[in-house]
Amino acid sequence: MLPLRIEDSVFEGVKDERVTRNQLLDAASAAMIEARTPDVSLHVIARRAGLTAPLVKYYFGGKDGLLLALALRDAGQALRELEDLMAQDLPPDEALRLHVAGIVRSCARHPYLNGLLNLLLREEHSRPAAVIREKFIAPMVEAQRRLLEQGRACGSFRDVDPGMFYFVVTGACQHLFSTRVALNHPLNGAPADEKLACDYAAAAIDLIFKGLLKGEST
Amino acid sequence: MLPLRIEDSVFEGVKDERVTRNQLLDAASAAMIEARTPDVSLHVIARRAGLTAPLVKYYFGGKDGLLLALALRDAGQALRELEDLMAQDLPPDEALRLHVAGIVRSCARHPYLNGLLNLLLREEHSRPAAVIREKFIAPMVEAQRRLLEQGRACGSFRDVDPGMFYFVVTGACQHLFSTRVALNHPLNGAPADEKLACDYAAAAIDLIFKGLLKGEST
Repeated sequence: MLPLRIEDSVFEGVKDERVTRNQLLDAASAAMIEARTPDVSLHVIARRAGLTAPLVKYYFGGKDGLLLALALRDAGQALRELEDLMAQDLPPDEALRLHVAGIVRSCARHPYLNGLLNLLLREEHSRPAAVIREKFIAPMVEAQRRLLEQGRACGSFRDVDPGMFYFVVTGACQHLFSTRVALNHPLNGAPADEKLACDYAAAAIDLIFKGLLKGEST
Repeated sequence: MLPLRIEDSVFEGVKDERVTRNQLLDAASAAMIEARTPDVSLHVIARRAGLTAPLVKYYFGGKDGLLLALALRDAGQALRELEDLMAQDLPPDEALRLHVAGIVRSCARHPYLNGLLNLLLREEHSRPAAVIREKFIAPMVEAQRRLLEQGRACGSFRDVDPGMFYFVVTGACQHLFSTRVALNHPLNGAPADEKLACDYAAAAIDLIFKGLLKGEST
């Protein structure tokens, strides 16, 4: 029985480690929402998780590692949804609408995310910056480029620059929430509610897809 | 001659004070561009202006005062341009295009501005937050609301929610520059060049006004 018991305890250990890592990421997320900035101390995050700062260092190799893990977890969700969409072979118009709604949902859930990404990207030669560019920004731009190209090929979309499209759309999607966590009248520091996220997604999609002008699209 | 000499020296004093204040604001702006964040110390700003931190406190009453003065100077420019546009009685379509191009120019010149505004808005009951809301955000939303209403009345614009429009448009306008100062390949921390700002303004205006869909606007 000994080998089996050892194996059990190894699995237990792996499971515990994942649970603790997730606890710490949840604590970091909650601390950033409360502080209305991604700039919170390891000490605050650890205390919130009922752990100590050295343990954070043990699990993530330091604050940068924790911030990167959180950014990848939160931003990765939007990216995985996009990859699922691409695999479903939907009409490009529908896929892109669902994608934009997904970005808005992601920003509503994690209003600190845009600030967190900018914080990690600030030191452009750092490992976190390279990881964010490689694991998040490049695949997102590439997937959007493919959807835009498909839509243009089937005659649904006008010809727009994919790089510019990425910045216009992600900027539009995140701004309400990263600012609202600061403006914050009805929200009291909590993530935006589902209804606001839906309304904003609908408004952003309507404006970006149909444009402001009446009867000028050609 | 004595009263006149006193008056002269009073004017000199006022002029010197304005010059020093502007030197400090320029130094803060340059330090934020170099650090790629609005989060820079009074000490760094003062040293850059060849002055001392206590002198910054003398002129602006502390760091918050300096940050607020810089935000109002930089953001105020876009607002004054919008007020000039409103006074010119242009067709709403043209006025709104010029306004969006002005926001993009403003964000290109001051890539730290969005982060600076969020920093000041974070403490929602603080004086800086109240000043930014009252002197910048509220008049900007109101002016856009009037242009959207005029455009709708004359049949140029579709019916869009002015609050949502504000967040979509300002988010889209600032995102390239607040992120680019972080992504920062060709720019090396310098504000984006005129050409990039023009290209991005054109792309954002094209997408927001005409929309992505081909021949669907009604």
